[in-house]
Amino acid sequence: MPSAFDPPSGTRDFLAADVERREHVFAVLRSVFARYGFEPLQTPAFERVDVLLGKYGDEADKLVFKILRRGEHEASGEADLALRYDMTVPLARVAAAYGSQLPTPYKRYVIGSVWRADRPGKDRYREFTQCDVDTLGADSLLADAEVLCVQHDVLAELGLPEFTILLNSRRVLSGLLTAFNVPADLGPGVLISLDKLDKLTPPDVAAELAGRGLPADQAGELVATLTATDSIEAVRVAVGKTEDGQAGLDEIDTLLSLVSGQIPDNRIAFEPRMVRGLSYYTGPIWETMAPGVAGSIDSGGRYDHLIAQLGGPDVPATGSSIGVERILPVLPAAGARARGRLDVAVTVMRGDLAAQSFAFAAAARSAGLRSSVYLGSSGKLGRQLKWASDTGARWCLIYGEQEHEAGNVTVRDMSSGEQASVPAAELASYFTAACLTAAES
Amino acid sequence: MPSAFDPPSGTRDFLAADVERREHVFAVLRSVFARYGFEPLQTPAFERVDVLLGKYGDEADKLVFKILRRGEHEASGEADLALRYDMTVPLARVAAAYGSQLPTPYKRYVIGSVWRADRPGKDRYREFTQCDVDTLGADSLLADAEVLCVQHDVLAELGLPEFTILLNSRRVLSGLLTAFNVPADLGPGVLISLDKLDKLTPPDVAAELAGRGLPADQAGELVATLTATDSIEAVRVAVGKTEDGQAGLDEIDTLLSLVSGQIPDNRIAFEPRMVRGLSYYTGPIWETMAPGVAGSIDSGGRYDHLIAQLGGPDVPATGSSIGVERILPVLPAAGARARGRLDVAVTVMRGDLAAQSFAFAAAARSAGLRSSVYLGSSGKLGRQLKWASDTGARWCLIYGEQEHEAGNVTVRDMSSGEQASVPAAELASYFTAACLTAAES
Repeated sequence: MPSAFDPPSGTRDFLAADVERREHVFAVLRSVFARYGFEPLQTPAFERVDVLLGKYGDEADKLVFKILRRGEHEASGEADLALRYDMTVPLARVAAAYGSQLPTPYKRYVIGSVWRADRPGKDRYREFTQCDVDTLGADSLLADAEVLCVQHDVLAELGLPEFTILLNSRRVLSGLLTAFNVPADLGPGVLISLDKLDKLTPPDVAAELAGRGLPADQAGELVATLTATDSIEAVRVAVGKTEDGQAGLDEIDTLLSLVSGQIPDNRIAFEPRMVRGLSYYTGPIWETMAPGVAGSIDSGGRYDHLIAQLGGPDVPATGSSIGVERILPVLPAAGARARGRLDVAVTVMRGDLAAQSFAFAAAARSAGLRSSVYLGSSGKLGRQLKWASDTGARWCLIYGEQEHEAGNVTVRDMSSGEQASVPAAELASYFTAACLTAAES
Repeated sequence: MPSAFDPPSGTRDFLAADVERREHVFAVLRSVFARYGFEPLQTPAFERVDVLLGKYGDEADKLVFKILRRGEHEASGEADLALRYDMTVPLARVAAAYGSQLPTPYKRYVIGSVWRADRPGKDRYREFTQCDVDTLGADSLLADAEVLCVQHDVLAELGLPEFTILLNSRRVLSGLLTAFNVPADLGPGVLISLDKLDKLTPPDVAAELAGRGLPADQAGELVATLTATDSIEAVRVAVGKTEDGQAGLDEIDTLLSLVSGQIPDNRIAFEPRMVRGLSYYTGPIWETMAPGVAGSIDSGGRYDHLIAQLGGPDVPATGSSIGVERILPVLPAAGARARGRLDVAVTVMRGDLAAQSFAFAAAARSAGLRSSVYLGSSGKLGRQLKWASDTGARWCLIYGEQEHEAGNVTVRDMSSGEQASVPAAELASYFTAACLTAAES
């Protein structure tokens, strides 16, 4: 049951373990991006409504969170700002604003929140992290190949055990339509139906194509070619007879050859049935599938005129969106929280001994350990050991009357329960030595 | 002149160098926080309006960015959500929502954007990063001392050359008012005026106090005590005669003693004239001043009932806000971008040699270097060397017809201009060795 203290519908609070798991993933992403020379960009959470609206059609505009004008204008009920819906509209604005200040080509990545007023559901949020990596200003297929390698390296370094990058080209699809004499006006609809071959049976797809107005024999032949056991070869033969199709096949082959040393053969494949829904792609397109994930976990392609359509300069562009929210749930546990909040928990047995305890925690920190004193009000050792255990600490320092008189600190190993007496003055070097031993073993 | 491509008024785009500078600072903050056992929290960018509004008074509510209801409700002009104004209201909600799931005490930090519809100005933004570190559920002054040490360590590790943490207590201030017989109803106003002793002359402050209704001799005496050369001692004597004042002095002395081993004496001082404006503080208060920064760069204190007032449980609390936006401009250049986008820039001299160039970049990456191929269309070496230089690369790999025939790669040192021929197959080990040599020197 939703409580008054829940975050707004479709949003999430991330407590420590979640934040750490997510930050681990983001750190891997940033490191891979930097290795390829992509540089970070951050833009504001909101844009002016005129920048944001009308870019992806009415349906998308309905999903935009709009911000009310303020002060005397609030009563107008009008919006002048809106939360960003994706990272591409801000990229187009940045490309227009900073043109010559940006490197050519401009290779940038962004990791940040976007907001969409979608109906919340399982794995569908109104605030989620979007991670994009794009190259503006490069025609070369080398730029597409780089993005594909980045996409592969990210998943490999995150330890995703199994995934396949499906590769296709809008020009192969265009050639396919030509080869099967699909009338131009039916083209987009036919592609949408063909995209369903991974969900529907071939006869169902053929029926859907016929319903769109394609003659039944043509529809049947098209579906048969795409679902034959040697479908790739069959498509290559059919498509290769058209000019656009052959150009698309050349793109695919060049890309496969470029990435062959970096992406293992079993992780990338030409898939002529893969149609990215969005109409703005102009060349190669790709998406990554992984067992246990519905839909693609990453996707992208070349979109040579979109930046201009979004209000930026007319530059060639290619890039990927890394589906971090889909990757996070299927990651192996290695990304999960491996350790507690503290390495060294320090008891405070008596008020007049608190200053020494506080100094011991500082000594542990100066040895590079995470440490803190007990901040509660109980003077009972059992209670404080319970707290030390809850923090996940490896050691608990006990400093009571007995230790005070002897000038020692009792260092308790929280997993074995073994205790050692360490002279107070030697605590920092004791921990430095203990950490070195741990690092060596 | 503002352009159509500028970010919205009061917000900023952060290009690569800015992002890297900021991320460096955030990384230092996170590392210090973790060392003290503070754990991260992230909450949504927006909250329901009923959670957010009415918490800090009408003036603050006017600065809240409100989000228009969506769909059929959009026309109502009403808001149901609002961008977070600070990190304390979300903290109160989280404390209420997750109570027993959170550690006791709950030591958390948060680094994230907040939004305020303030009039934009120099160093005043509508979207800015707020960084808070707080402990909920601990009465002990040890918790306050920890926050003070965190605040010190952050600034020390960021390399801020000079700063002073000013320490006071609301109870010292309360004792001061009692000692000088200030009527209870004049108390808050008198404190506001006394807070101006760092800006106005003593006679001006005395006049302002008189204007507030304090008898002129009383006002003069109060100002004289606070501005005397031995003012600290004078205040101690006066305040020590009152019960609350003595308790406040004890708090100060305990805190100074607790942090004495960790914060150098010249970086923290009792300052009885320091009054934090916000009325919710209940015990020790502090703020950090640094040369060249107007206003405090960090501030905080104990606020034992605020969490309950904000809708959370009634727990004692203490914490600091680290003014990252104020710290960033005064940081030494060490935090600035130290290197280019790439370590190794790889030329692409001919289309049929592109695959080899692409593989060389991969070899450099596998040696831990940042590397990319030239993505432009020029086949001219001069143009490509210019690009390599622009990326800040340390080496440029040249692979043309000559190298191709010889099975070599030319490795050009971009600072010296020296060139070496390296067999293509030995490139990865060449870079591994070069990096080892660089690390040793």
